[in-house]
Amino acid sequence: MKELKDVIIQEGLPINKDVLVADSFLNHEVDAWLMKNIGQEFYSRFRKEPITKIVTLESSGIAPALMCALYFNVPVVFAKEEPHAISSDYYKETVYSFTQEELVDIIICINRLEKSDYVLIIDDFLANGDAALGLVNLIKQAGATIAGLGIVIEKSFQSGREKLLAEGIRLESLARIASMKQGKVEFIEEKLVR
Amino acid sequence: MKELKDVIIQEGLPINKDVLVADSFLNHEVDAWLMKNIGQEFYSRFRKEPITKIVTLESSGIAPALMCALYFNVPVVFAKEEPHAISSDYYKETVYSFTQEELVDIIICINRLEKSDYVLIIDDFLANGDAALGLVNLIKQAGATIAGLGIVIEKSFQSGREKLLAEGIRLESLARIASMKQGKVEFIEEKLVR
Repeated sequence: MKELKDVIIQEGLPINKDVLVADSFLNHEVDAWLMKNIGQEFYSRFRKEPITKIVTLESSGIAPALMCALYFNVPVVFAKEEPHAISSDYYKETVYSFTQEELVDIIICINRLEKSDYVLIIDDFLANGDAALGLVNLIKQAGATIAGLGIVIEKSFQSGREKLLAEGIRLESLARIASMKQGKVEFIEEKLVR
Repeated sequence: MKELKDVIIQEGLPINKDVLVADSFLNHEVDAWLMKNIGQEFYSRFRKEPITKIVTLESSGIAPALMCALYFNVPVVFAKEEPHAISSDYYKETVYSFTQEELVDIIICINRLEKSDYVLIIDDFLANGDAALGLVNLIKQAGATIAGLGIVIEKSFQSGREKLLAEGIRLESLARIASMKQGKVEFIEEKLVR
C-alpha cells in the first residue's frame, strides 16, 4: 500500500535494526484518514469472505480494525489484557508483550464470539507473531472460523509470517519491511493479486 | 443523543448502582457505525472551535475519538499507560484507574502536543473525573489550549462533571445517566442548544 509505505519512510523511526517507532501515525498519534484508507484496503483484500466480526488487540490495533469494520459493517471485538473486574467468563491466552517486555494474559469474554462467527483479525504490527497467534487461539477456543489476518506493518525479517502460514492462516500485510539496517527501511515489493 | 441512549437501554448492563457494563457496543465489542455517529455528534457540538488535535486515553476512548477526528480532519493522540520503552521525553500524570482499581501513570510524549494546539478531549465514560482531569493536566503541561471535553456516557450521579466545570472546562456528554437503581438506567433529559 503505497500511501502507508510513504508514511513509514517519512515518519517511521527505525531506532535499531529490530524496532520501528510509529508514534506519529499509528501507535500514539493516529492519522485518522490513513486509518480509514487502511481499513478500506483490508476490505478490498478480504471482501469476498463472509466476515461477521473483526478481532484485534488493544490498544494500537483498534484504529485500523474499527475503520475496516465500517467497510464490512460488522462489529470490532478487541481482546483485552486481563482486567481486575470482568463481567463474564472468558477465553484466555498468555502472550509475550513486545512493548511491556513480559508475559501478559489477553482475554475475550465468551459472549463476544460465537461458533458461527467468521472472523478477520487485524493488528498494527507483526513481529514474532506472539500476539497474532494469541488472537488466533482465542478465536479457536470460541470455535469460530478465521478468515485471515490483516497486518498494517509486517517486520518480515522476524518469524511471525512463517508461524502464521504454518498454522494455515491467510496473511495480508500492507507494508512488509525486509530490513532496517543503518536506520534505513527497505520493503519487500509484492505484486498484489486481487 | 437518542441512538446512544437507546443502545444503553437495550444493551447496557447496570451491574450495580455505580457500574454500567457497556461491553457489547463500547468497551470490548465496538459498534463501528454507532462510533461514527458519535464522532459526528461531537463534531456538530464543537465544530465552531478551531480544533487541531483530539486527545483520548487508551483503550476505550480510541474508537469515538478516531471517528470524531475524521470529521475534524485532525489527528488523534491517545495517552498511554507508562510503558517500559519510550521513544522520547513525556508529560506524566497519575490517575486512579476505575478498571484496574489502582493508581496508574498516564503519559503523552512531548513531541505529540504543541503550545499552538487547540485540543478536544474525548473519552468513553465520565465517573469521578480522574481520567479526564489527568488528560486536562497533561494538555496543560504542554501549554496547549483545551476546547472542551466530549464524553460518550456520563454518570451524572458521580462527581466528575462538577470537578471539570470547576476547572472551567466545557463539557458535552452524549448520554447523562441520572441513576441506575434496581438495574434501571434513568437519563437526565436535556435540551440541546446548538
